[in-house]
Amino acid sequence: MKKYLLAPGPTAVSPEVLLSMAQPILHHRAPEFVELLKRVKEDLKWLFQTENDVLILASTGTGGMEGSVSNFLSPGDKALYINGGKFGERWGKICKGYGVLTEEIKVEWGCVVNPADVAAALEKDPSIKAVFIQASETSTGVAHPVKEVAQIVKNYDNCLMVVDAISAMGVFDVQTDAWDLDVVISGAQKALALPPGLAFVSISEKGWRQAEKCTNAKFYFDFKKERDAIRKNQTAYTAAVSLILGLEQSLKMMREEGREAIFARRATMAKALREGMEAIGLASFPKEGASVSVTAISAPEGYDAQAIYKDLRVKYGITAAGGQDQLKGKVFRISNMGYLDTFDTITAVAAIEMVLKAMGYEIKLGTGVGVAQEILLKK
Amino acid sequence: MKKYLLAPGPTAVSPEVLLSMAQPILHHRAPEFVELLKRVKEDLKWLFQTENDVLILASTGTGGMEGSVSNFLSPGDKALYINGGKFGERWGKICKGYGVLTEEIKVEWGCVVNPADVAAALEKDPSIKAVFIQASETSTGVAHPVKEVAQIVKNYDNCLMVVDAISAMGVFDVQTDAWDLDVVISGAQKALALPPGLAFVSISEKGWRQAEKCTNAKFYFDFKKERDAIRKNQTAYTAAVSLILGLEQSLKMMREEGREAIFARRATMAKALREGMEAIGLASFPKEGASVSVTAISAPEGYDAQAIYKDLRVKYGITAAGGQDQLKGKVFRISNMGYLDTFDTITAVAAIEMVLKAMGYEIKLGTGVGVAQEILLKK
Repeated sequence: MKKYLLAPGPTAVSPEVLLSMAQPILHHRAPEFVELLKRVKEDLKWLFQTENDVLILASTGTGGMEGSVSNFLSPGDKALYINGGKFGERWGKICKGYGVLTEEIKVEWGCVVNPADVAAALEKDPSIKAVFIQASETSTGVAHPVKEVAQIVKNYDNCLMVVDAISAMGVFDVQTDAWDLDVVISGAQKALALPPGLAFVSISEKGWRQAEKCTNAKFYFDFKKERDAIRKNQTAYTAAVSLILGLEQSLKMMREEGREAIFARRATMAKALREGMEAIGLASFPKEGASVSVTAISAPEGYDAQAIYKDLRVKYGITAAGGQDQLKGKVFRISNMGYLDTFDTITAVAAIEMVLKAMGYEIKLGTGVGVAQEILLKK
Repeated sequence: MKKYLLAPGPTAVSPEVLLSMAQPILHHRAPEFVELLKRVKEDLKWLFQTENDVLILASTGTGGMEGSVSNFLSPGDKALYINGGKFGERWGKICKGYGVLTEEIKVEWGCVVNPADVAAALEKDPSIKAVFIQASETSTGVAHPVKEVAQIVKNYDNCLMVVDAISAMGVFDVQTDAWDLDVVISGAQKALALPPGLAFVSISEKGWRQAEKCTNAKFYFDFKKERDAIRKNQTAYTAAVSLILGLEQSLKMMREEGREAIFARRATMAKALREGMEAIGLASFPKEGASVSVTAISAPEGYDAQAIYKDLRVKYGITAAGGQDQLKGKVFRISNMGYLDTFDTITAVAAIEMVLKAMGYEIKLGTGVGVAQEILLKK
């Protein structure tokens, strides 16, 4: 059976990238590799819309998140984190591990944070040294208003705006410099459509100043050491050379398509998927701020979302994602990231229709597909 | 110009492994991937000669080293480390970062640690909670007597034997269980002949007991979380799926060859290289305990080792390694690890002869090659 990877990470990788990674291994200190890193770091700056250093770590995105706590906050420091899903929750766990005191803004799953709540928290406690947020919360399919929150945080000289953009960067607009984002994290296995194993972190001057004062333990994720290395077109430790060969190819393809064109294409795919689902009576899970990166869809009343997710895989070779924690059985999730285009969206809608029909759900096959086609045709 | 990768990591990767990594991406929670991890973890146990859990981390070996400090030692605990090279030194740096007090046994570069010194240190201070050592110190090409040191450490119930076997495992005999090694670390980009990006760590029951008491901060390298995951054939965070596909292929090839056969073949290659060099007047750098993994060769009197290293690359497309820190300019290093066999050893000897000849070194071409051939023919 032909396989389709429509999960929100790892995502499908193009043949061009797979082949570029199958090249013979370059030594990580060889001149050719130094040249390669020089090109790649410029392309990453383009992707991040920044003039800041963008570090390249041999880890998944979680390593980038951990480093974004351990490099900027000392034990006893206070941080504010937005918890509206499984990844927001993770900020709290990492902070706790590093002795960082936390203030939490709990957001109902499927909703966005209200920037006024961030303003109130910072006003109440100006000792807060960082605000941690997700640009796209993968567990709920919600995009928080990062730009608006950052406008509040930038008024505090001793508070950093730290954004987990792991599943956002390269899917929709995240303007690192223009929006005053101090620390922005991304990873290989989402929009960049690479295998997992690389994290990227951009850090502002304000961020580096705060890093100078930080006493927390770190070694592998020591950002200052990585900064000194990347400025010489190197990495502090052995680089994941084959993934970086793939990264070069992926970024080349993204630059050819263009940032605005990518954002428009992904937004159209997400809209087609969402409206295709609505046409057959399946609601998008988010009440507000639906993310372009991943579409979380509520199962119809009386149907188990895990069963839909499972049938997609078993009957049709489509790997989507189920719901996590409190959403297990209630939602399933389809990625709009990775090496996917128009007809992958149509495949998703068609397959969901077919799975539901076989489960006894009343539906005229093609209804959702037709709606998705209309939207995709217009683009 | 055809390229040869003869550096002690990253090492050359076989076409079979490169192609296996070019397969479409599997989702890290998909049943096929769970099945794959189940096979791979058994093969890793075979490689490590252990019944213990072997964790699979998405990082380079250094991440495994850091976790082997942060998971077993708390701030204020005391550790002993053997420092006979750049990687031995690293143990001290990591411990310092984590507030671990250290006792250091300094070993002259090119020599092995004397187990009696370890015994004396532990007798003097029985509060020492871990001994950190390299099975193969890549910077000097020396293999420490791990088995003998472990026999001393095992008498201390509250002291762990922690072995960096990053460039040893799969090259020469390291018997995790039979030698009572509590924590053993390896990585993808050495003997396993994979691209960088994976670390492996085996942990004994004694190790897990000590981990229970540890208060140091960790998140990405939280070994208990990884243990709970690998027991269910999963990883705690997103797995580096393509590298793990390569790992399966690499381990399959190693099992086909057989552990003893691999050790014998690598030892013969190292001997051929070493004696080939001696035949043309170039001494092996180690005074004792020359490691099979990497051969460190002293440049002849009056010749710059960096120039030899550079000419190998520029004139002949051969990436070897120079000397690090105090050995820069004095030695160059040739790997016996990776996808290399008989004629790569011959290539190395022949190329070194040709580079030296062109530099004006007096030599009859073929002298070293002939000696290497004799040794390789007998195997």
